[in-house]
Amino acid sequence: MEPPAEIGMELKDVDTPALIIDLDRFESNLNLMSKQVEDLGVNLRPHAKTHKSADIAKAQMARGAVGVCCQKVSEAEALATDGIQNILITNQVVGRHKVDRLVRLSKKAEISVCVDHSENILELNAAASRANIDLAVFVEMDVGGGRCGAFPGKPVLDLASQVVQAPCLKFAGLQAYNGQAQELRSYAGRRQATEVVCNAVEETVLLLKERNIQCPTVTGSGTGTWEFEGSSKVYTELQAGSYVFMDASYLRNENIDGKVGRVFQSSLYIYTLVMSATSHEYAVVDAGLKSIAFDQGMPAVVGDLGANYYEPSDEHGLIKLTEATRSYSLGDKIMLIPGHCDPTVNLHNWYVCIRQGRVEQVWDVTARGALY
Amino acid sequence: MEPPAEIGMELKDVDTPALIIDLDRFESNLNLMSKQVEDLGVNLRPHAKTHKSADIAKAQMARGAVGVCCQKVSEAEALATDGIQNILITNQVVGRHKVDRLVRLSKKAEISVCVDHSENILELNAAASRANIDLAVFVEMDVGGGRCGAFPGKPVLDLASQVVQAPCLKFAGLQAYNGQAQELRSYAGRRQATEVVCNAVEETVLLLKERNIQCPTVTGSGTGTWEFEGSSKVYTELQAGSYVFMDASYLRNENIDGKVGRVFQSSLYIYTLVMSATSHEYAVVDAGLKSIAFDQGMPAVVGDLGANYYEPSDEHGLIKLTEATRSYSLGDKIMLIPGHCDPTVNLHNWYVCIRQGRVEQVWDVTARGALY
Repeated sequence: MEPPAEIGMELKDVDTPALIIDLDRFESNLNLMSKQVEDLGVNLRPHAKTHKSADIAKAQMARGAVGVCCQKVSEAEALATDGIQNILITNQVVGRHKVDRLVRLSKKAEISVCVDHSENILELNAAASRANIDLAVFVEMDVGGGRCGAFPGKPVLDLASQVVQAPCLKFAGLQAYNGQAQELRSYAGRRQATEVVCNAVEETVLLLKERNIQCPTVTGSGTGTWEFEGSSKVYTELQAGSYVFMDASYLRNENIDGKVGRVFQSSLYIYTLVMSATSHEYAVVDAGLKSIAFDQGMPAVVGDLGANYYEPSDEHGLIKLTEATRSYSLGDKIMLIPGHCDPTVNLHNWYVCIRQGRVEQVWDVTARGALY
Repeated sequence: MEPPAEIGMELKDVDTPALIIDLDRFESNLNLMSKQVEDLGVNLRPHAKTHKSADIAKAQMARGAVGVCCQKVSEAEALATDGIQNILITNQVVGRHKVDRLVRLSKKAEISVCVDHSENILELNAAASRANIDLAVFVEMDVGGGRCGAFPGKPVLDLASQVVQAPCLKFAGLQAYNGQAQELRSYAGRRQATEVVCNAVEETVLLLKERNIQCPTVTGSGTGTWEFEGSSKVYTELQAGSYVFMDASYLRNENIDGKVGRVFQSSLYIYTLVMSATSHEYAVVDAGLKSIAFDQGMPAVVGDLGANYYEPSDEHGLIKLTEATRSYSLGDKIMLIPGHCDPTVNLHNWYVCIRQGRVEQVWDVTARGALY
């Protein structure tokens, strides 16, 4: 298959549906976050689950990021192959086959991983021992997300002690991601939810210290709460990832002034074509369930705030036509802002990067479909 | 990236999350549909938007299918490259770049396409003329779906007349897909909805005949209604596609006896791993929004009907643990039935085909990500 665009092409000639980056907005987001973490004095390790791109990971590291995060061994394999040398897998890697791949990858790049279970620690240590390496391991805390992670206090302490004693593992610190706070709309609400978690993490760090376990790194955070963890003096590393693109959902978060959308800007779009225009009630576009993720709602139409995208099917979507909307003709091309960037990116093989109406770059989605 | 399995491997060693085909069930579905359409005396042109696989298209054609359907030019390009020679694009192809690709492809394989707009007919004819070919064109009727298609009666007649008069186009017939009837749960409801549409199509065919326009083919139908269009004497070709896998949603359709799930069987699964088991309330599995489509509801857990999969996130899902469910331990692997097969398949690069607990084949998802 060929990409939907060539470098130098005008935007209007890009094939549809295509995944578009507005480079000016994207770079502005990268520069802003880089400056902010420098001011806060914490490390940035952006989550690459958002973009799955070696090109974007390199752009982040060129601006000071210490490395990136991934969720899957195969994502880390794909990014390492394309030159990314420092990767934290913010997830549990379970089972002989996956663990062996993790350990093999650790010989090529600086890899660390999370654990939340005693059996998994034994499995990782055995694999590291067979491969004759030391593997860096974070203990993941469940800080209210109700998903992976050991509970704060004694469960985390027990796992950390086990890691410290495992001959082929290095205790790298704590992973504590407060997922459920990311999209609380009120600024004060996100700050308060983050403070509660920071206190729980700090208590656990002290508990470790009492047992003479030093905690080199506390890592976590996201695009909804980075400024709170960043100024907490508890977290040493921030994992925000979505700031590069800004999902429609994140754009609804209120800032400190109670207003929305003033800090990071949306920079990721789906370019789509009006492929059928037989009705006065709707226009049919060529982007549906196979090119946009809908789990966080419908996409917005750029430049036509009155327009509603509705009834997505596999390869189609409808734009409701009213007196409040623009008129749409067969062959028109329009930009959509996806509700949820991460699973939208995963549907595409290429980013088409635009500046001033022209294609400046075409980047692979390096780790698209890296599920394992 | 490497596939999650090798031929000969035991199922339990397949990496997760993986897209699995149960070959016995899959072949039974193919054989059953082949026999049914033969008995009905209609052609089968299964929709390849479901499976996007040249291997599966070949298996269907080996059992008598006259060709396949696709939704996108790039899907047709991918399948034609892998040897599929007869493809109907059941969709509008709009814009110079796409139309030129369509015409180029027509030199390599037998390609037909749908239209619902006068301007598009001019565009297709001009491209076919430039390429010095005759292009086969179906006029798509909107039979109540409220998406693409011209309205029955005069609008369809006008477009068909225009196609007939276009020097480089051949009028191939009518496309009439009754999407909104496919998942009416009651058998009588689906039959009645299909009858209404068959009558409208028949009237339009007669209207064409009055103007001396012969309609060689009436094509449409789906897995929910194939038996009704198949016995209608109006449709000459059925496009059912989902019968090969059977979405959880289609399995809820009632058959003629008022019971469900007795004809075609589910044959497509997601194999997933319990990657975190720190809670007594849930187990965390490694398949979420990036490996399963959720637009038609949550997946079902095979062999544990009491179990609920809930709260999917990008790379995780939760299985609710109750007294009614099995117990789950770290590292357990389980099978899920996806709610909607087509967009689930599009998330994966490979099918892992299983028989009697072993991997018999690994097939590419040939046209995964073929969006254009």
